[in-house]
Amino acid sequence: MVSAWLNGSIVESGQAYISLSDRGFTLADGVFETIRTARARPLWFADHLARLKNSAATLGIPLEHDDRKVEAAIVQLLETSEQADSAVRITLTRGPSSKRGLWPPGEPVHPTLLITVAPLAAFPAQDMVVCRSSRRNEHSPLSRIKSLNYGDNLLARREAFDRGATDALMLNTSGDLACATVGNVFLRIERRWVTPRLADGALAGLARARLIKTINATELAVSSTSIGKADAGFVSNSLGCAVIDRIEGQPLQDITRDVDLTSIYAVA
Amino acid sequence: MVSAWLNGSIVESGQAYISLSDRGFTLADGVFETIRTARARPLWFADHLARLKNSAATLGIPLEHDDRKVEAAIVQLLETSEQADSAVRITLTRGPSSKRGLWPPGEPVHPTLLITVAPLAAFPAQDMVVCRSSRRNEHSPLSRIKSLNYGDNLLARREAFDRGATDALMLNTSGDLACATVGNVFLRIERRWVTPRLADGALAGLARARLIKTINATELAVSSTSIGKADAGFVSNSLGCAVIDRIEGQPLQDITRDVDLTSIYAVA
Repeated sequence: MVSAWLNGSIVESGQAYISLSDRGFTLADGVFETIRTARARPLWFADHLARLKNSAATLGIPLEHDDRKVEAAIVQLLETSEQADSAVRITLTRGPSSKRGLWPPGEPVHPTLLITVAPLAAFPAQDMVVCRSSRRNEHSPLSRIKSLNYGDNLLARREAFDRGATDALMLNTSGDLACATVGNVFLRIERRWVTPRLADGALAGLARARLIKTINATELAVSSTSIGKADAGFVSNSLGCAVIDRIEGQPLQDITRDVDLTSIYAVA
Repeated sequence: MVSAWLNGSIVESGQAYISLSDRGFTLADGVFETIRTARARPLWFADHLARLKNSAATLGIPLEHDDRKVEAAIVQLLETSEQADSAVRITLTRGPSSKRGLWPPGEPVHPTLLITVAPLAAFPAQDMVVCRSSRRNEHSPLSRIKSLNYGDNLLARREAFDRGATDALMLNTSGDLACATVGNVFLRIERRWVTPRLADGALAGLARARLIKTINATELAVSSTSIGKADAGFVSNSLGCAVIDRIEGQPLQDITRDVDLTSIYAVA
């Protein structure tokens, strides 16, 4: 049986539910975090909670449980889990609403806080295409928080799948690189590691911030022309890094032996 | 008691729920329609179903129930409702997924089809601001379908509320007018009625299409400068039209006596 933590209680996933009127379901009015675990503890927990609160504040959703309670819930869930390494997801929505309409939501609002645990899957090397069907909206605050609005990423991933690839590089509305569908992107161009700026529509990834330091990467606008000049690259997120094998069918160099993509996740 | 129709059955809203793993909830992986009723029947039903299917096809979500079954469900729900005039919402998501990740979703996929009914509220005159906090992404297919990804609209509406207005005019990433947060926008500029083109990020509103004919409006790009030249305007959606009273504090003319904004909703 798979357990989850919902609004303060451990529940069995198959026997716990979301209200039909939850604004997370009806309007994508919510945010989330995905957290890697190490030794049955959440990794980078303080940073994840800070980002969750920042995302929630952007939408004006309160987090009614304090940090220690959320951490204790995760630890409790991990104890019931049989996985050694897990991916924990915290989802926070504005909760059920008694009224139709966007704003103000029906009162009183009781946010929904859901914590789920899944096995930490391997993050295999990625065969990328440059997404044609959609663009990342760098003009939207949503591009800088982890909101539930994953529609564009879904479209991009689906396009990649339809084109025989595994993931897509998303451009922003100016035509510069923003990110992959579930992570930040680092490319090696003319011997220099680069990654899109937050202003280009990149999420402030927790792995991204650490990798910028460990591999001495530069944040800058990466034009679609520049993408074609990359000779190596990888995708990063809080769960791990995946080497990029190909972009638009062109093979990249294997940098797994030269670049350290794992130590940031190591626990001392 | 409020009833809903969920995956083939009439249920009591307070006793029916969405799975914790429904991708509509976790990833905004779904679409919807909002339908006005007249004489206990859904108005423009065929057009709404066609748009729902088009939206769903964009995301690759099948609609497993045929049109007559969906219409019968709505009629059945309206019979249990005490409202003379209602707003029906059809929500279609990819359904619960056994796996994490964006694509391909966990198999087998059983889409969630939910139909809810709410009272048809009045759509009062709107005091508009031009949204500064976010932009409509006209480069995304999501701007042309009714997906669950309402985050940018929520941000815009919240900004309007914070600035003492009731709704916001959303610009696209090029700075041209796209829409309001829950409807299309028509403005009268230099004695001509205009409305943004679909390419500008406007949804292909069912009321919009009818109004373009009845008031002889022109579809064209409306720059943010042009917005300031409007002397009258209104917002339209499938539930009704709302006159725009003010834009950025500047009063507009009242056109309720001169322009027919109600006959498109009349049933012969």
